[in-house]
Amino acid sequence: MYDVTQIRADFPILSRQVNNKPLVYLDNGASAQKPQVVIDAITTAYAQEYSNVHRGLHYLSNLATEKYEAVRGTIAQFLGAMDEHEIVMNSGTTEGINTVAYGWAMPRMEPGDEIILSVMEHHANIVPWHFLRERQGVVLKWVDVDETGALDPQKLLDAITPKTKLIAVTHMSNVLGTMVDVKAICDGAREKGVPVLVDGSQAAVHMPVNVAEIGCDFYAITGHKLYGPSGSGAIYIRADRQAEMRPFMGGGDMIREVHKDEITYNDPPMRFEAGTPGIVQMIGLGTALDYMTGVGMRNIAAHEAGLRDYAQSKLDGLNWLQVQGHAKGKGAIFSFTLDGAAHAHDISTILDKKGVAVRAGHHCAGPLMDHLGVTATCRASFGMYNTTQEVDVLIDALELAHDLFG
Amino acid sequence: MYDVTQIRADFPILSRQVNNKPLVYLDNGASAQKPQVVIDAITTAYAQEYSNVHRGLHYLSNLATEKYEAVRGTIAQFLGAMDEHEIVMNSGTTEGINTVAYGWAMPRMEPGDEIILSVMEHHANIVPWHFLRERQGVVLKWVDVDETGALDPQKLLDAITPKTKLIAVTHMSNVLGTMVDVKAICDGAREKGVPVLVDGSQAAVHMPVNVAEIGCDFYAITGHKLYGPSGSGAIYIRADRQAEMRPFMGGGDMIREVHKDEITYNDPPMRFEAGTPGIVQMIGLGTALDYMTGVGMRNIAAHEAGLRDYAQSKLDGLNWLQVQGHAKGKGAIFSFTLDGAAHAHDISTILDKKGVAVRAGHHCAGPLMDHLGVTATCRASFGMYNTTQEVDVLIDALELAHDLFG
Repeated sequence: MYDVTQIRADFPILSRQVNNKPLVYLDNGASAQKPQVVIDAITTAYAQEYSNVHRGLHYLSNLATEKYEAVRGTIAQFLGAMDEHEIVMNSGTTEGINTVAYGWAMPRMEPGDEIILSVMEHHANIVPWHFLRERQGVVLKWVDVDETGALDPQKLLDAITPKTKLIAVTHMSNVLGTMVDVKAICDGAREKGVPVLVDGSQAAVHMPVNVAEIGCDFYAITGHKLYGPSGSGAIYIRADRQAEMRPFMGGGDMIREVHKDEITYNDPPMRFEAGTPGIVQMIGLGTALDYMTGVGMRNIAAHEAGLRDYAQSKLDGLNWLQVQGHAKGKGAIFSFTLDGAAHAHDISTILDKKGVAVRAGHHCAGPLMDHLGVTATCRASFGMYNTTQEVDVLIDALELAHDLFG
Repeated sequence: MYDVTQIRADFPILSRQVNNKPLVYLDNGASAQKPQVVIDAITTAYAQEYSNVHRGLHYLSNLATEKYEAVRGTIAQFLGAMDEHEIVMNSGTTEGINTVAYGWAMPRMEPGDEIILSVMEHHANIVPWHFLRERQGVVLKWVDVDETGALDPQKLLDAITPKTKLIAVTHMSNVLGTMVDVKAICDGAREKGVPVLVDGSQAAVHMPVNVAEIGCDFYAITGHKLYGPSGSGAIYIRADRQAEMRPFMGGGDMIREVHKDEITYNDPPMRFEAGTPGIVQMIGLGTALDYMTGVGMRNIAAHEAGLRDYAQSKLDGLNWLQVQGHAKGKGAIFSFTLDGAAHAHDISTILDKKGVAVRAGHHCAGPLMDHLGVTATCRASFGMYNTTQEVDVLIDALELAHDLFG
């Protein structure tokens, strides 16, 4: 039995008010709130167990290293990686994808080489590839979604040419909620020898993920969306791809020996982890993943499917509101615009007065905004602690906004 | 009056024991402990005020953005930067120097161009330049320290040729404690049109820093050594150098507009801050800097000078122990080796049994180890909360180690 009341009680911020109303936090697509166990893990790490890692032999250093390195295994298990050495720990998806862009793609891509992207990628999975376009003449090939916001895996596979060096695709749209059949994409791409990078920033929060089953080469996640600390994250990089990569950032820990005119690098994954890492954030992320696993990813997915269905039916009843994206099996993310002159920003300001936190803007998805023909939407994005009652508060607040602007 | 007892009471971990002995934490060069105010700032940020920044218009997003962005001004003031837009917030010195290497140096350096480094640089200020050597034929020119470990600024200036594109030098050696007259270096380099990057990871912890007075182009700091959270940091980049740089990491926030085949970037410093930043770490770093400023950087420097003198006189009395580095005005960092077969690692293990945390190894300073002709040293590095009594405990523990191994 999914006890959402108990789960809510685990997140201290959810009992606060904003603008004299109970907080209804529906901005989970931007970042999720943190359970007390994560906050406690951070406090304990700093107040009792802190030291730099990998570098000392004293008690605290060994303790911190043990706690920090254990998270690698936690992440591997969370993502279904066969070997924890395939987990590179970092500050989030942005760093993860840049690690692949600079470390794997940049040294091997030539002018005219192609990268295939879906039109609903987040800027984190676009801008690093734009760099390659600007700097070394790589061609970005975009695959559109259909009128429901669904992405046909075959369309990506059909876009493959002998020049295609990479497919970079999201597992779940942060705007439309569309789920992407990345396994089908990876299966087809492998036959053609094309590696696939999956942006799992959203998907890994809302459903069980198994990278071995998916068969991807790269899978990026970001801790702050996973109910973990800001500045935490990881990227799964399959061992054979790690072996093809050169280091990205240079600094301590990622080297074996440094001399004046000679340098040798550490083995992966350390080769891709330069300098003092986000020690305590990563310990916090481990706790967050344990928390999610404790609740159960299937249970979370089922709870959020219920929220999605309930919200969808309610939103469908508002004939002055347009939801963008109705793909089958989508996640509990609703981007919408309202009839009339109301700008998304004005709507979010009204909702905020009612305690409802949503996001308004382009959601770091410029090409998708172009595709949809809008400059901005409002987005309500749900998490494991949201309730149908909160959907009702959202609907009431939207009706108020419609009355004011309609 | 510097009340070290009160300061110690502010750091919860300092009252714990390790191996049934009171903790004597002398590994501050690797990372510093955190005062309760920093831990509390983190807790409050997550439990009451958390949201993503720059991206929403709702109450919590505005609040978190305000708290996060205020830290930029705090850092600017801490470093004496004229304009807070010259502060790029990041995860620490490693990311900061890589931002300069990839964003400023890489696009403008050609085969045969030279970078001048001191032999006592930390790997964070070496490896990014080795990348340029390996990948595009840049020449690294090394300047040695004298037999006391002092670095003559004139020797760096004399190494400048028409091919010199950058001087990259530490403000304070993490191994020897040597302070470097970076102002003299910057003054001389400016006359010859050579930019200077200063690695302030150690110096900014122990003395007042003013980048405007120093006249450097780049100044990197790392939060976890500044009594702040892991994964926090910043780099000062003078406005004219920012204007010369291309972006480093690509992702959200650092762009203005993203389309399928066109991209425009945000203004600096945002141009160099991709993706969701380390929101709460940076808020914690702001609190840490406020804490240090509250105690007073001059007071901290004076206290540590007293510790240095006391420790130096005690260590000088041990004729079976060799301290590396006796430069005039050095900081309270002591790297040493012991007569006999004892490896640095064995010594640190003995000290640990007495509750004394020191580091043993190459201290991420390979070329300096080569220069000194050692593979490893023990290092005792002091911070604002250390005491002369702790020096006595260190000395007693060293005598025990000498008895065991001597």
